[in-house]
Amino acid sequence: MANKKYVYSFKEAHQAKVGKEILGGKGFGLAEMTAAGINIPQGFTVTTEACTLYYKSGKRIPDDVWEDIVAHVHEIEKNSGKSFGGGKGMPLLVSVRSGARQSMPGMMDTILNLGSNDKTVEELVAATGNERFAWDSYRRFILMFTNIAKGHPRTAMDAMLDKIKEENGYKLDTEVTVPQLKELVKAYKEYYKSVFGEEFPTDPYEQLREAVSAVFRSWDNPRANVYRQMNGIPYEWGTAVNVQTMVFGNMGEDSGTGVAFSRDPSTGEKHIYAEFLPNAQGEDVVAGVRTPLHIDELQKRMPEVYKQFTETIVKMEKYFRDMQDMEYTVEKGTLYFLQTRNGKRTARSALKIACDLVDEGLITEEEAVCRVEPKQLNDLLHPTFDKAEEKKHTPFLRGLPASPGAGTGHIVFTAEECKQQHDNGVNVVLCRAETSPEDIIGMVNSEAIVTARGGMTSHAAVVARSMGKCCVAGCTAAIINEEAKTMTVGDKVYHEGDVISVDGSTGEVFDGEIKMVPADLGGDFGRMMAWADKYRRLKIRANCNTPEDAANAARFGAEGIGLCRTERMFFAEDRILNMRSMILSDTTEQREAALERIRPFLMDDFYKMYKSCPDNMVNIRLLDPPLHEFLPTINDTKNIADIAEKLGISEQKVKDRINQLQQANPMMGFRGVRLCVAYPEIYAVLATAIIQAAYKASAELGKAVEPEIMIPLTGELKELKFAKNVVVKAVEAEMAKHDSKLVYHVGTMIEIPRGALQAGNLAKEAEFFSFGTNDLTQLTMGFSRDDAGQFLPFYYDNKIYEFDPFQTIDVEGVGELVKIAVERGRATKPELLIGVCGETGGDPASIMFYDKVGLDYVSCSPFRVPLARLAAAQAAIVNKTK
Amino acid sequence: MANKKYVYSFKEAHQAKVGKEILGGKGFGLAEMTAAGINIPQGFTVTTEACTLYYKSGKRIPDDVWEDIVAHVHEIEKNSGKSFGGGKGMPLLVSVRSGARQSMPGMMDTILNLGSNDKTVEELVAATGNERFAWDSYRRFILMFTNIAKGHPRTAMDAMLDKIKEENGYKLDTEVTVPQLKELVKAYKEYYKSVFGEEFPTDPYEQLREAVSAVFRSWDNPRANVYRQMNGIPYEWGTAVNVQTMVFGNMGEDSGTGVAFSRDPSTGEKHIYAEFLPNAQGEDVVAGVRTPLHIDELQKRMPEVYKQFTETIVKMEKYFRDMQDMEYTVEKGTLYFLQTRNGKRTARSALKIACDLVDEGLITEEEAVCRVEPKQLNDLLHPTFDKAEEKKHTPFLRGLPASPGAGTGHIVFTAEECKQQHDNGVNVVLCRAETSPEDIIGMVNSEAIVTARGGMTSHAAVVARSMGKCCVAGCTAAIINEEAKTMTVGDKVYHEGDVISVDGSTGEVFDGEIKMVPADLGGDFGRMMAWADKYRRLKIRANCNTPEDAANAARFGAEGIGLCRTERMFFAEDRILNMRSMILSDTTEQREAALERIRPFLMDDFYKMYKSCPDNMVNIRLLDPPLHEFLPTINDTKNIADIAEKLGISEQKVKDRINQLQQANPMMGFRGVRLCVAYPEIYAVLATAIIQAAYKASAELGKAVEPEIMIPLTGELKELKFAKNVVVKAVEAEMAKHDSKLVYHVGTMIEIPRGALQAGNLAKEAEFFSFGTNDLTQLTMGFSRDDAGQFLPFYYDNKIYEFDPFQTIDVEGVGELVKIAVERGRATKPELLIGVCGETGGDPASIMFYDKVGLDYVSCSPFRVPLARLAAAQAAIVNKTK
Repeated sequence: MANKKYVYSFKEAHQAKVGKEILGGKGFGLAEMTAAGINIPQGFTVTTEACTLYYKSGKRIPDDVWEDIVAHVHEIEKNSGKSFGGGKGMPLLVSVRSGARQSMPGMMDTILNLGSNDKTVEELVAATGNERFAWDSYRRFILMFTNIAKGHPRTAMDAMLDKIKEENGYKLDTEVTVPQLKELVKAYKEYYKSVFGEEFPTDPYEQLREAVSAVFRSWDNPRANVYRQMNGIPYEWGTAVNVQTMVFGNMGEDSGTGVAFSRDPSTGEKHIYAEFLPNAQGEDVVAGVRTPLHIDELQKRMPEVYKQFTETIVKMEKYFRDMQDMEYTVEKGTLYFLQTRNGKRTARSALKIACDLVDEGLITEEEAVCRVEPKQLNDLLHPTFDKAEEKKHTPFLRGLPASPGAGTGHIVFTAEECKQQHDNGVNVVLCRAETSPEDIIGMVNSEAIVTARGGMTSHAAVVARSMGKCCVAGCTAAIINEEAKTMTVGDKVYHEGDVISVDGSTGEVFDGEIKMVPADLGGDFGRMMAWADKYRRLKIRANCNTPEDAANAARFGAEGIGLCRTERMFFAEDRILNMRSMILSDTTEQREAALERIRPFLMDDFYKMYKSCPDNMVNIRLLDPPLHEFLPTINDTKNIADIAEKLGISEQKVKDRINQLQQANPMMGFRGVRLCVAYPEIYAVLATAIIQAAYKASAELGKAVEPEIMIPLTGELKELKFAKNVVVKAVEAEMAKHDSKLVYHVGTMIEIPRGALQAGNLAKEAEFFSFGTNDLTQLTMGFSRDDAGQFLPFYYDNKIYEFDPFQTIDVEGVGELVKIAVERGRATKPELLIGVCGETGGDPASIMFYDKVGLDYVSCSPFRVPLARLAAAQAAIVNKTK
Repeated sequence: MANKKYVYSFKEAHQAKVGKEILGGKGFGLAEMTAAGINIPQGFTVTTEACTLYYKSGKRIPDDVWEDIVAHVHEIEKNSGKSFGGGKGMPLLVSVRSGARQSMPGMMDTILNLGSNDKTVEELVAATGNERFAWDSYRRFILMFTNIAKGHPRTAMDAMLDKIKEENGYKLDTEVTVPQLKELVKAYKEYYKSVFGEEFPTDPYEQLREAVSAVFRSWDNPRANVYRQMNGIPYEWGTAVNVQTMVFGNMGEDSGTGVAFSRDPSTGEKHIYAEFLPNAQGEDVVAGVRTPLHIDELQKRMPEVYKQFTETIVKMEKYFRDMQDMEYTVEKGTLYFLQTRNGKRTARSALKIACDLVDEGLITEEEAVCRVEPKQLNDLLHPTFDKAEEKKHTPFLRGLPASPGAGTGHIVFTAEECKQQHDNGVNVVLCRAETSPEDIIGMVNSEAIVTARGGMTSHAAVVARSMGKCCVAGCTAAIINEEAKTMTVGDKVYHEGDVISVDGSTGEVFDGEIKMVPADLGGDFGRMMAWADKYRRLKIRANCNTPEDAANAARFGAEGIGLCRTERMFFAEDRILNMRSMILSDTTEQREAALERIRPFLMDDFYKMYKSCPDNMVNIRLLDPPLHEFLPTINDTKNIADIAEKLGISEQKVKDRINQLQQANPMMGFRGVRLCVAYPEIYAVLATAIIQAAYKASAELGKAVEPEIMIPLTGELKELKFAKNVVVKAVEAEMAKHDSKLVYHVGTMIEIPRGALQAGNLAKEAEFFSFGTNDLTQLTMGFSRDDAGQFLPFYYDNKIYEFDPFQTIDVEGVGELVKIAVERGRATKPELLIGVCGETGGDPASIMFYDKVGLDYVSCSPFRVPLARLAAAQAAIVNKTK
């Protein structure tokens, strides 16, 4: 620890080649910009390791780290000739910003104008001759320090400003006069004292210590935790803190600030996409308090600055070889770039940018493949509004096309309502005056977002794009009253529950519901998929229970069906009574007779599956759920009576069987292959139907269907042998009736820990393995998916588990069993086909793992197939280079 | 396969040093007897490997094996000058008997006099001049072949004999005349033809093939399967078949047969214990059809034979260095031994014999330790009748003291009734005219067995001793009518449901219930335990939930408490309401207040445990079950109303919480350490109470109690850290109030697969591991203990699993996780204390495994402690020599 460096000036960081994981994204960008010779306000980075140390030290900045921070402040003072806390001419004010390894826009804290006090404000007036600017900066600082460093809500202080504006009929903050600002500063400080019982701190180092601590603490705030969980960012990473000399966009009409993208983040088109807000600080832009102007405004006002601006942006994009998202400030005609990062972008634009960069020779195909976030592809697979239908509607509201796509739903006005309605299966559109980070849970659960205020880089816009949610921002014509739950547009009032349709690509909002059309899978999308297919090693299959699923899977490029669950087939109305009759039978003969009555239906279902299937490989899982699921519950007297009557047996008998089949822990109960051991006839009939259908479909399709017959829940070789024997006997009996043989395969799911450990033995009889990670996770971690909701939130809160292991494989635990099973299975049978068909089969992080451990394929829901293709390619590229 | 030998003559087997696992116990004994120069009827053994091959070949004797069998028959013919199937003077008749690696008395099939037909019967008459014997042998053969080789019930044929006896007023079979026997043979053959539609087979090789097949098949009969399951004998072993020249105990008054033990199998006393039945074949003895005479009878009738008899027995015991159980036959004054094996014995006699053999210098202490079946010790730990009380009663019935111990219960007359009543919690005594192997399920479920017929070596006696069940056999004064459900003794009639008391050590049966007294743990028992303690490596602890348990554990020699479950403490009446109040709280403060009200009770419980505890190590497991277990079920409106009233809250609130806590799979639900992550205050209060009690008890006992605080259900290091931190904080806070420090340890259960896999990490924070094999088995095998009853029977029937993995550890699956956890845990922390506290901790086969993988201790129920001590010694001896 003694020799570890926790604080780097931007220059030092570049020279020492410190990485992003230590500097955070923002710090790294600043170090790189220093290297590239861009004009940036100088400063330093307190590393992510210092953050970890802060938490380890009981939320305290250790003395040696603090001393180094102070030394770096002194260095800025020396280089700039400014003085921190004032006392020698121009005072040094700084910004204090978070900067994690991966950008988490709006999730953590920022404090500007730090170092301000009663002395510096006067010095600033003296140095700049701009009294209004100095007092406004001071005011802003007191507000942010109170709100962010001290964690006190800003409501009361905002109200003080609003009151002045209202009383004087001001529309803009800039209209507030200097005396009024001075009044405000005084009122803010009094308010601070009344809340905290002490004077507002004037010592800039005291301010700095509080601010750095606050940024570190903000790593652990609830919205950051939700964001991390959603994006799979580990809690261990921590955030860095960047302390940077303030430059001022609010020093008059020759000043201003804005955000710029080197390409259009919404469409990906190759032109600078930027905004400019004259005489303002960055906070105004990000918070969406004021709506910024088009960048032409900068060109109009300061053509020289504009020229320098565009040249720098082009240079930066070439330097970083990716679309950049930058913040800039013009201070009295001098252009500064405050930060740069690879820009967040929509799925559509991510594809276009990646393709264009390849065409421009800036990146390779492999790099392009790695530039698109697989989860984003989902946005492109879902329908958009039918253009013809959309034309028939006239929008009642227009705003900025902040995040593309289409969404229809019932209006709601709060995040809580969003979540609640969504949980009830209702599609909703979240309408807010402006969104704040607290709204994130609402945004997750809505079909679309509409805001009255804020630009393309407002919180709502940034977050919506990162989620692939449709969003229209800055609908200035709408007055949204969240208290009254109304949205007023002109003389029309919309209420909670009204249905609207939102087009995030055009920025238009319509009354009622508009018909949707399927997604376009050609163009950049098709090109990216072709590259993905070129570089990936894993095959991608789809989990399909219906012919419709199979058709979708084919459309999205699946290479076979990885899981077809047979249970659904027994539930259909024309067979459930026979299924129940089977369950209520006393003898094997009765069971066989009941199953025989279901067989033709099963045969037809399988036949249809084969016909719609994207390839000739169809993996069919034999019956898995416990039998009680096919019977009514014991209190359902109506259904019990109905069954008894239809089957001509006593109600008591039905009840007895229901009671007998009751399971204390159904997940670990009488299900899967256990059904076959007890009632072999069930699997025999399924196997017969599978083969009959394969003959029929093969003949019609003119190509041989190759059924893979999968036995669930196996844990022991003798058990697998028993079930396989049942299947093979039925199959061979059916084949004997035909002239030609069909190729078929019998294999097993690996979904109980014993099965994974016994994989070496199971491979003696299995032609393939398919990991059922849902059950394997339940059993390995010892928690039921249905019950985990009761305790996992406490685990997330305490950072014991950070993500849902049913979504992303638990590499340390479940993953080890997967590895063991792969090694042992292949040791017995090197040609063993191994895949995964659990929920995690469509999760990019899990796919990275599955590629690494050498699976042959992953199988996921049809809509996840493109995502999986891309993730598999990224995995192959990353795992190859490791 | 071509070169493998499947058939050995007894001499060949000895010369080739073939082992017991190939020859079976009986075949091995015969080979050894050949080596020792004992006079035995010659023959050969078809190996256990032939049995495996028989099943693999679709229940067919493969041609090469059959050819070798035929060759060996020819060899006997050559050596004896007798002819198989007749034709040249004295015909060759053989017995065909099963012989598994481990003796399974009465479980498999035997066929005698094979080779008999219409020709041989006449030749036998000619050769022996004994017409009666020849025809009787023939008759017996037809009966056994029909019944055993062809699997047809013997009822009708038995009735034919009984009818003749009845009509002629005969009491004994021997009174039946030659013409009557001839009539019977004719009637039997006609009956055979009427049943099977073909003549009774006269070809002796056809007979032999059927008989060998029948013995192989009998390996798989239901009673053999039950016996194997009970005794942990693997199905794979198979049985050998011994084909041996018949000698005849039924050739007149200078012939006879019997069974002999080299020591008393009931008491272990050093004197020959034997029976003699003149003019009879062995079957009569074993079946208990006739009650044999005391061995003095042999001495009286044939003193020379008797001398040879005793000398041979003494010689055999020395040769085998163990108490022998032999069958012998005297054929016209010549003594043959038909088989020998190490004799089954009662627990008491096993101890005495082992101790005596050590004293006699025949075996070492280590050998003695291995001579006692650990499970037998259970018989000695349970109370016997209070002798003073017993004296006040006069027995109404006396029989042979066939298996010692005492038992009281309600009379039942059938095995089914036994099982049913036992399942209802009723203690029963099974009363039967004589028992047959079909009664085994009844014997398992009864407190005692009483039979009217049969000697010390009858089926009932042998099986009862092997089970450690109290049994009185041969109560000739009782007439037991199983149809009418009555037992008549003199003029008194006993009915189903009457209560009787049975003393298996004296052979007395009493009216009503007699008081019991505790077991005597001194004498041979004490000596054996001392040896066990000398040789074992594993420490033995006990699972104790109450001070009474702890006192028993101390008495049985436990070295600490391996598991004290805390849940019971919350259920007691004086705290359940506070527990419920805790569960129904809305805030941490309310929960803490409710727990604080329970704390003094917990403290007192722990204090009492420490005071009764056998050692200063007490392992206390923190709360494990899901919280819903402490609340009534949702339909229990009365209790819900009661709770609501007492706690002053609404019934709806109680109902809501019950619903909220409902678990789909409670075993994998919100329980164990998860409770601590959600509500740390629960574990904090328990830890406080544990330490407070330890201070109090240490002060009073004058020795430091060392509590081990165990966290259940851990699967992840961060989770363990969290819970440990809660515990340590509470403990340190309590310690700060005292002058001195207490030594305490915090560790975890390893009971979910992830915990086993993550053992290397968990060992960083855990001072000890304790395997919870109940949960670990459930999760590893993926079946719930509560639900397994629905499907495990099918698994047993199909030989997929052969034993209950909750009783004996599944070495291949669960055991591998145990091994992994031990290796990884010790790699991190070599001094890590590792034990097991699941059900398997008291199972000898499991203890063998736990010793091998290097656990430090096993913990089991107090009554299993002596068993575990012995099993641990055997494990240490066996594992050392391997």
